[in-house]
Amino acid sequence: MRLFYHSNIDSNKQEVVLQPEDSKHIVRVLRMKQGNELQLMDGKGFRYTCNIKDANQKKCLVTIISVEELPQVAANVHLGIAPTKNMDRIEFFLEKAIEIGVASITFFYSTHSERKNLKLERLERIAVSAMKQSRKYWLPELSLAKNLDEVFLSPIKNKYIAYVPTAATENLFQKLTANEDTFVLVGPEGGFSEEEADKAKQKGFEWVSLGTERLRTETAGIVAVQMMNMSYLK
Amino acid sequence: MRLFYHSNIDSNKQEVVLQPEDSKHIVRVLRMKQGNELQLMDGKGFRYTCNIKDANQKKCLVTIISVEELPQVAANVHLGIAPTKNMDRIEFFLEKAIEIGVASITFFYSTHSERKNLKLERLERIAVSAMKQSRKYWLPELSLAKNLDEVFLSPIKNKYIAYVPTAATENLFQKLTANEDTFVLVGPEGGFSEEEADKAKQKGFEWVSLGTERLRTETAGIVAVQMMNMSYLK
Repeated sequence: MRLFYHSNIDSNKQEVVLQPEDSKHIVRVLRMKQGNELQLMDGKGFRYTCNIKDANQKKCLVTIISVEELPQVAANVHLGIAPTKNMDRIEFFLEKAIEIGVASITFFYSTHSERKNLKLERLERIAVSAMKQSRKYWLPELSLAKNLDEVFLSPIKNKYIAYVPTAATENLFQKLTANEDTFVLVGPEGGFSEEEADKAKQKGFEWVSLGTERLRTETAGIVAVQMMNMSYLK
Repeated sequence: MRLFYHSNIDSNKQEVVLQPEDSKHIVRVLRMKQGNELQLMDGKGFRYTCNIKDANQKKCLVTIISVEELPQVAANVHLGIAPTKNMDRIEFFLEKAIEIGVASITFFYSTHSERKNLKLERLERIAVSAMKQSRKYWLPELSLAKNLDEVFLSPIKNKYIAYVPTAATENLFQKLTANEDTFVLVGPEGGFSEEEADKAKQKGFEWVSLGTERLRTETAGIVAVQMMNMSYLK
């Protein structure tokens, strides 16, 4: 059955008015009619099976027939990352992170960041599409922190920062505890500054390595998300 | 020091004639002159420090001063993968796999493959660039198998195929043995056919899962390479 994303479904009401873009797609492109069934997802774990009541091509009206609640995958996986200079790379990272599983992504600018602006709206659209594509029902929370100090205030229990001052720095995977909220920070192309790494440590972020190899920012982000998703395999 | 790739350095000779493209770049763009130093890498673990003898912009001639041999990272990591319909995705996969670490990548077409042609030359150029970018000195061996039967003939000891018939299928990471040659096969968008999976099993490829989530082909490839690189952390 066709599945559409709608961020704002009031579960107290029996009817939903679809977005203009989806309405047009449903009525004009898919040529769906009154009585046809479709599904809505809200990105917060709910999937609604609906019936078209009014096939209006600007504001298609549907009646909710039933609702299911689906479990959140990777609910403990939280990543903080400095956006890369090249937007393609951060978009690819976002898609991969969502496929593998991530509950929240916090973007931040740091001393060595080459990019100091970010359009969250565009990333949110990519996130919705990746979520649908990988058949997930939870949209990760995307946010842009004012600065690193704000990121450092995170109340998450297990906190790590990808910073490798010596070859003895332990690997993130060895540190992970299964089924516990975990937050990993990945720096920009130039890495975190010494000052930032020191401050992170003071704020409870442990320094960890993501392996022996030199990784680009977006690759480090994917690897960190993958490791957090593998913590149950330890 | 500037580093250039040259696939065909005869270590018995003291001099190397550089490729026309590199010669032009060195002489015309970088304006390097006779006596200037540069480094060459052959993608087989050798790094040569050289001196320009003749700054010819078509066939720059250099003299080898010294040579170092660098260890191969991820020498045990072998991946077989069906190219995706969208070339961007397979190119991104290739770059990520090289950053993380891979010794060989075998491309193959299978029953559900949407792409049945591949330009290895283009992928080789991307591989060289990813190798240089991630400061590696070994170029992974890229090949295109005639068919899956040829892939199944691999003499590698530990062989796996990403194929998940039931929820009980074990995760690749749990199966891995550290420091042993390992070959993992990742199928196309539509997955391997039952017949292919059965044949693989007969040929000694164990069925494994890459996690609980639905992954695109290129993501599955990255995840498999990452897991193989993490086998020492078990």
